[in-house]
Amino acid sequence: MHNFVFHNPTKIIFGRNTMDAIGPEARIWGQRGLLVYGQNSIKSNGIYAQVAASLQAAGMEIAELGGVRSNPLLSLAREGIRLAKEHRAEVIIAVGGGSVIDTAKAIGAGAMVEHDVWKFFTGKKGIKQTLPLATVLTLAASGSEMNSGMVITNDATLEKFGFGHRLLHPKVSILDPEATFTVPPDYTAYGAIDAISHVLECYLTTTDPDTPVQDRLMEGLIENAMTACDRCLLDPHDYHGRANLLWTATLALDGLTAAGLGRVGFPMHLIEHSLSALYDVPHGAGLAVVMLGWLQHHAQTAAPRIADLGKRIFPAIEATNANLGAAQTIDGLRRWFQRVKAPVTLGDLGIPAGDIPRIAANSKGLARLWRLQDYAPERVAEVLHRCL
Amino acid sequence: MHNFVFHNPTKIIFGRNTMDAIGPEARIWGQRGLLVYGQNSIKSNGIYAQVAASLQAAGMEIAELGGVRSNPLLSLAREGIRLAKEHRAEVIIAVGGGSVIDTAKAIGAGAMVEHDVWKFFTGKKGIKQTLPLATVLTLAASGSEMNSGMVITNDATLEKFGFGHRLLHPKVSILDPEATFTVPPDYTAYGAIDAISHVLECYLTTTDPDTPVQDRLMEGLIENAMTACDRCLLDPHDYHGRANLLWTATLALDGLTAAGLGRVGFPMHLIEHSLSALYDVPHGAGLAVVMLGWLQHHAQTAAPRIADLGKRIFPAIEATNANLGAAQTIDGLRRWFQRVKAPVTLGDLGIPAGDIPRIAANSKGLARLWRLQDYAPERVAEVLHRCL
Repeated sequence: MHNFVFHNPTKIIFGRNTMDAIGPEARIWGQRGLLVYGQNSIKSNGIYAQVAASLQAAGMEIAELGGVRSNPLLSLAREGIRLAKEHRAEVIIAVGGGSVIDTAKAIGAGAMVEHDVWKFFTGKKGIKQTLPLATVLTLAASGSEMNSGMVITNDATLEKFGFGHRLLHPKVSILDPEATFTVPPDYTAYGAIDAISHVLECYLTTTDPDTPVQDRLMEGLIENAMTACDRCLLDPHDYHGRANLLWTATLALDGLTAAGLGRVGFPMHLIEHSLSALYDVPHGAGLAVVMLGWLQHHAQTAAPRIADLGKRIFPAIEATNANLGAAQTIDGLRRWFQRVKAPVTLGDLGIPAGDIPRIAANSKGLARLWRLQDYAPERVAEVLHRCL
Repeated sequence: MHNFVFHNPTKIIFGRNTMDAIGPEARIWGQRGLLVYGQNSIKSNGIYAQVAASLQAAGMEIAELGGVRSNPLLSLAREGIRLAKEHRAEVIIAVGGGSVIDTAKAIGAGAMVEHDVWKFFTGKKGIKQTLPLATVLTLAASGSEMNSGMVITNDATLEKFGFGHRLLHPKVSILDPEATFTVPPDYTAYGAIDAISHVLECYLTTTDPDTPVQDRLMEGLIENAMTACDRCLLDPHDYHGRANLLWTATLALDGLTAAGLGRVGFPMHLIEHSLSALYDVPHGAGLAVVMLGWLQHHAQTAAPRIADLGKRIFPAIEATNANLGAAQTIDGLRRWFQRVKAPVTLGDLGIPAGDIPRIAANSKGLARLWRLQDYAPERVAEVLHRCL
């Protein structure tokens, strides 16, 4: 086990009828708030009205920024920063999924400085302080509700960059499984795949062969992401299915899985970010495609570890040969992706093979920032060829 | 899954050569500190000298309270409270295992009030504030380094009581596996058994049948407590064995396993507290004995759950019959306890059958405080008869 510091101060309020806590919880941090949300779904399912009422009852003065979309845009974050400054916001309230929360994080960091917020993403400036953030989660996927990361797409340069800073932890996140009842089947599956990818990136890029505590935790989360997703697709109003998927996705990237693994990389995210920056595909859909290609690539050098994973998460796999076990594991994931109707090839995403050089070139900037020097465009292209 | 609030703000600094961080970390919270520790072991293994040097280098003024023993005593905590007030301590620094940390927690709460600290334990007074606490852990066992609980024995009344309060979370805990190299084999095993018991209490007393996320986490921790303990007994200086045991014991009672399980009880701890209050047996040794008896008692009504656990943690168990599976699971634990040379009967602890009524009577006060009304002395006696 490698040395680590683990410190996750986010308070989680989980369960039925918890959404009314947002007003009092946000009010702890200030009276003037900026409410950030996405498209119209929270207006049609009643969540917006409930949150607004709770904030009002707590005596808060609220400015609003709606319109965050998946693969959230820098231009809208900049608009939010302007609004937060103008409103003299003391706290940000995010109501939505990872895109909304990440936009709120960018606003909370950008509102404290005079320079452009993108400089944090390119590493030219460091975060010194942020506005406190309270969130109401509506999608099981990103884990942003309980971690220190954020990802934003620069719509001018088509760069999708992300990074982490300890000050980006939300102060409080409210997780009501019922708030995810109306998530459609495709996004339910993409969210589960996002959670799986977060665990897999750590599980497979660690160089530490002796982390059984983390391994059992990670294998359990992958297994649960699949079984809970299956339940949600069968019955979108299965409360416990939604609850298990929601808590799984949160724990999949809260820092605990990676603690002790040493330096882990996020090569699948590196490649997927280029896909969604260029084609605006849903993050989880892009990840499904990239994951299968990357796993085949990775199996060339790490078949035993992939095979070990397979034996833990797919009871039918009993192969004693590592290469066979790895192939069966990848096949097990592919079949599950197909069952939940996720794309499994670039073609499924409508991306032609001829675009691979362009995608690979796009990954260069983020590879530098993430210090994934071993993922040069040539190697990214090689992975992408396995995604055809 | 039940509703829950999860908020664990303790910062963990884990790994080799981390102990020197204690000075700067404690200094964040104040300049005047009270250093709490146990018997002579930290003086002979060099930990005391290293901690003292780090505190001095950070410019701290330190008063000291040594002499904490396992099953820590109220009388010493009172002495520490007197000392903390006299020294006008701003921060407590605990160097030791759960007994030292719990004593430090009691001091940190008691130093803020004029009334006797025992009133917190009997529920007559509530904690409003505490002194901040920084810890250096030397034993993988209690989980107190990352939770909100504390247990103290009233040496005048022979009551061993414990409870939790969110303000009892340490601010920071330093976990260096090398600091546990000199823990002798018996206490290494008792610590692992303590960790197992913490997980089992939650796993088996939850009334929620639909918590697969927590189940996989808990099964992994039990499996790891056993395998890591085996490694430490084989080679006390096996760094990764010690690291895995240490992190397992911390995660076994950090609030995450129980989050979502609803109201869980600690019946094994209820009974063991009476054993160690009356006979001063090591907590983990008492737990080994009580666990086997309680599991047999519990199997009368919950055999399927115990059998499910067994299938996950003992690969050899394949019984389809729940009663048989439960019996095999209990037998698997008993054989492991015997292998690590833990006691498995009251006789092994030197406690005669004739004392059972006295032990059962002692459990009455804590059963009331813990609202374990279904554990009347008669039922406790019934469990204890299974421990003979």
